[in-house]
Amino acid sequence: MASSSISSFKAADLVVQLSPSLKTKPDVVDFGTVFTDHMLTVEWNANDGWQTPLIRPFGDLSLHPACSALHYAVELFEGLKVYRGDDKRLRLFRPLLNMERMSKSAERACLPAFDQSELLGCIRRLIEIDQDWVPHLGPACLYIRPTFIGTEPSLGVKKPNRALLYVIMCQAGSYFNTELSLWANPKYTRAWKGGTGDCKMGGNYGGTLFAQHEAGSYGCQQVLWLYGEDHQITEGGTMNIFLHWINEDGDEELATPPLDGIILPGVTRQSILDLARKWDEFKVSERYLTMGQLCSALKQQRLKQMFGSGTACRVCHIGSIVYEEKNLQLPNQDEHSLSSRIATELTDMQHGRSPSDWTYLV
Amino acid sequence: MASSSISSFKAADLVVQLSPSLKTKPDVVDFGTVFTDHMLTVEWNANDGWQTPLIRPFGDLSLHPACSALHYAVELFEGLKVYRGDDKRLRLFRPLLNMERMSKSAERACLPAFDQSELLGCIRRLIEIDQDWVPHLGPACLYIRPTFIGTEPSLGVKKPNRALLYVIMCQAGSYFNTELSLWANPKYTRAWKGGTGDCKMGGNYGGTLFAQHEAGSYGCQQVLWLYGEDHQITEGGTMNIFLHWINEDGDEELATPPLDGIILPGVTRQSILDLARKWDEFKVSERYLTMGQLCSALKQQRLKQMFGSGTACRVCHIGSIVYEEKNLQLPNQDEHSLSSRIATELTDMQHGRSPSDWTYLV
Repeated sequence: MASSSISSFKAADLVVQLSPSLKTKPDVVDFGTVFTDHMLTVEWNANDGWQTPLIRPFGDLSLHPACSALHYAVELFEGLKVYRGDDKRLRLFRPLLNMERMSKSAERACLPAFDQSELLGCIRRLIEIDQDWVPHLGPACLYIRPTFIGTEPSLGVKKPNRALLYVIMCQAGSYFNTELSLWANPKYTRAWKGGTGDCKMGGNYGGTLFAQHEAGSYGCQQVLWLYGEDHQITEGGTMNIFLHWINEDGDEELATPPLDGIILPGVTRQSILDLARKWDEFKVSERYLTMGQLCSALKQQRLKQMFGSGTACRVCHIGSIVYEEKNLQLPNQDEHSLSSRIATELTDMQHGRSPSDWTYLV
Repeated sequence: MASSSISSFKAADLVVQLSPSLKTKPDVVDFGTVFTDHMLTVEWNANDGWQTPLIRPFGDLSLHPACSALHYAVELFEGLKVYRGDDKRLRLFRPLLNMERMSKSAERACLPAFDQSELLGCIRRLIEIDQDWVPHLGPACLYIRPTFIGTEPSLGVKKPNRALLYVIMCQAGSYFNTELSLWANPKYTRAWKGGTGDCKMGGNYGGTLFAQHEAGSYGCQQVLWLYGEDHQITEGGTMNIFLHWINEDGDEELATPPLDGIILPGVTRQSILDLARKWDEFKVSERYLTMGQLCSALKQQRLKQMFGSGTACRVCHIGSIVYEEKNLQLPNQDEHSLSSRIATELTDMQHGRSPSDWTYLV
C-alpha cells in the first residue's frame, strides 16, 4: 500500500451527483458493452494536484483533441470484479493487488501517484451507489474498470501536466464461452525486455489486434504469444498461461512463466500460484516454458492440461494450438482437471461460500 | 496511393462550419501548444462506413469513456508541415508519404482504410480555411497532425466497430533549441521485431516517457534507443538517426539504420537519403550501426557528425552521448557540417526558393 503521505484525493471528499433517471438492466450481454448508471472521475494537474473526486452520471468525456492519451497512449487501466455472495453481501477479490499494480503502471506511464486506499474507498462508494447492477443470480458479477489517462492538451512528447483518473463499471457477461484455440507464431511479439509488458498500459493492447485477426484466419480465437529464438510461451490473448504436466524430470508440476519484465502480473495468476502452493500436492514453478518443451510433453503424453487465467476470462481451458503448420490437440478438460478445481475454489471464495482473507467486503 | 476503389469519404463532400470568432495568434510559442481555429473530423462505423467529412470550429471531442483509444491505444497519428514560400504560396512537403504511412499504420491498428488523396484533399481545404495561421516570416511553419482513433464504446479487446479520423493544426514553434544530448542505455527498448515500431501508433510513445525522464536525470534531453546484445543504434527520442563518418573500410559514408521493422520510416529520413544519393559524393547506406562502431570511430576520429531527423525537429545535430558511464563528446556542428547543407536544401525547397517535385502546392 502506498503511504498516506502521498498527495492524493480522498474518498472522504467525494462529491456525488446522482443520475436523475436510471437505465434498465438488460439480462445477458456481451462482456463490457453495458455500463452502470454512474462513474467516478478525478482530475489532476501539475499546478494544483489532485482535484475533488466526483461520482456523476455515466456519460461521455470531453477531451482536448491533442490529449496525450489519444496521441501517445499515455494511458493505463485495471480490471477487477465485484461479486454478490450467497449471503447477498458484495465482495471484491484481492483489490489491493489491483491498486498496487495500477500505481506501478502509473509510475511507468509518468502519471501522478495516488493513495491506493483512497482510490479503493472511492470505488467502494461507486459500487454502493450502483449495487443493483451486481447480478443476483449464478456466477455473474460486475466488472470494474479503473482507467487513468494523460490529458495534456499539447503535442510535445513529454510527461503530461494534466491527467484524468476515472472508473466505469459494466456487466461482465461471458468472456469466452468454450475452450480456447490459440495460434502460436513468432512473427508477432506482445512484449519485450525494456518495454511495458509488465504494466497494464494501453499500448500493450492496440498492437495485438492485427495478430488476433490473423489468428482468426487460422481458425483460432486468440494468439499464443511467443518470445525469443526458443519460442518461449509467454501469454495467450490477454491471459497468463499455465501448464499442468509431468515435467522433464518426471515430477508433477504446475508451471507458468516468471515475472521477468514481459509478463503481466495477473491477480488470478498470483492467486492460482498461492492456492497451489498452499495445497502442496505437486511442484509449483515460475519458470521458462518453450514450445519445444510443450511439444515433447504432448508427444510423451506428459501434459495434463494447459489453461489461461485472467480477471475477465477467469480460468480458461485451452483445447488446441496451431503451431508450425500443425494443429496440436491438447488434453480435454473434465471435472478432474486442475482448472475446474481452481475455478471452484475461487468462485467459492468470491461468492462467500468459503471464508477467505482474499475477499474484501464492500 | 490507395486505389480509388476503396470505400472512403470524399473531399468533394466536405461540410464546412466556420467558427463565429477567430482566435488571436500569439507570436512565439512552444511546439504543439496553440491550435488553429478549425479542425477536420470524419467518423466511421462498421455498419455505415465513412460519414461525411466535416470542417468545424476547433474544440473538444466527446468520447465514450470505454473508447478503445483510451483503453487499448487503438490510435495512430501523422505529422507534416505547411510552409509559406518566399512567393507567398503555401507548400506541403511530400505529403503523399505521410498519407501512405498513415494507411499502413491504420492497417496495423485494425482501423479502416481510406483513400489517401481524398484525405489530402480535405487537409488542403482545412489549410486554406486557416491559412492566416501559417507564419509569414522566417523558417516558421504550421504543423499538421492527422489523428485516427478507435472509438468502439465497449471493453472487449477487438477490432473497433467505430472510429474517428481527425486533423488538427498547431504552431510549430521551435522543437529543440540547441544541439542535442542523448542518453544511451539498453535498459529500455523503444520497439522490437514483431511489434509496431515501424508504424506511427500511439503505443510506441507512451512507454518512452519514463526513459526520457531518466535521460533527464543524466543531464540528457533525449534517449538514444539501443537494440539487442550488440547495442544497435536505432532512433533518438522521436527522431531517425544518421552517422556521417569515415566507415570501417575507410570510405566516407552517410549511414542510418535500415527499415527492418523497428525503425519508423521517416519522411525526412527518406528525403535525406534521396538527396545524398542524388549528390553521389559519398557512400549512402541503410545499415546496422552499433555503439561499439560509433565508439571506435570516435576514438579514431573518423566521425564527422551525428544527427537526428524528423518532421517536428527537422535536422538536429547531436553533441554528446552518455553511454556506459562515459560522456562521449561528438564533433561540433559548423557551416560545413552535412546537417547544415541538408537543412538548407530542404528549407529552400519547402519555401519555394528552389524548384522541387517534392513540394505540393496547397
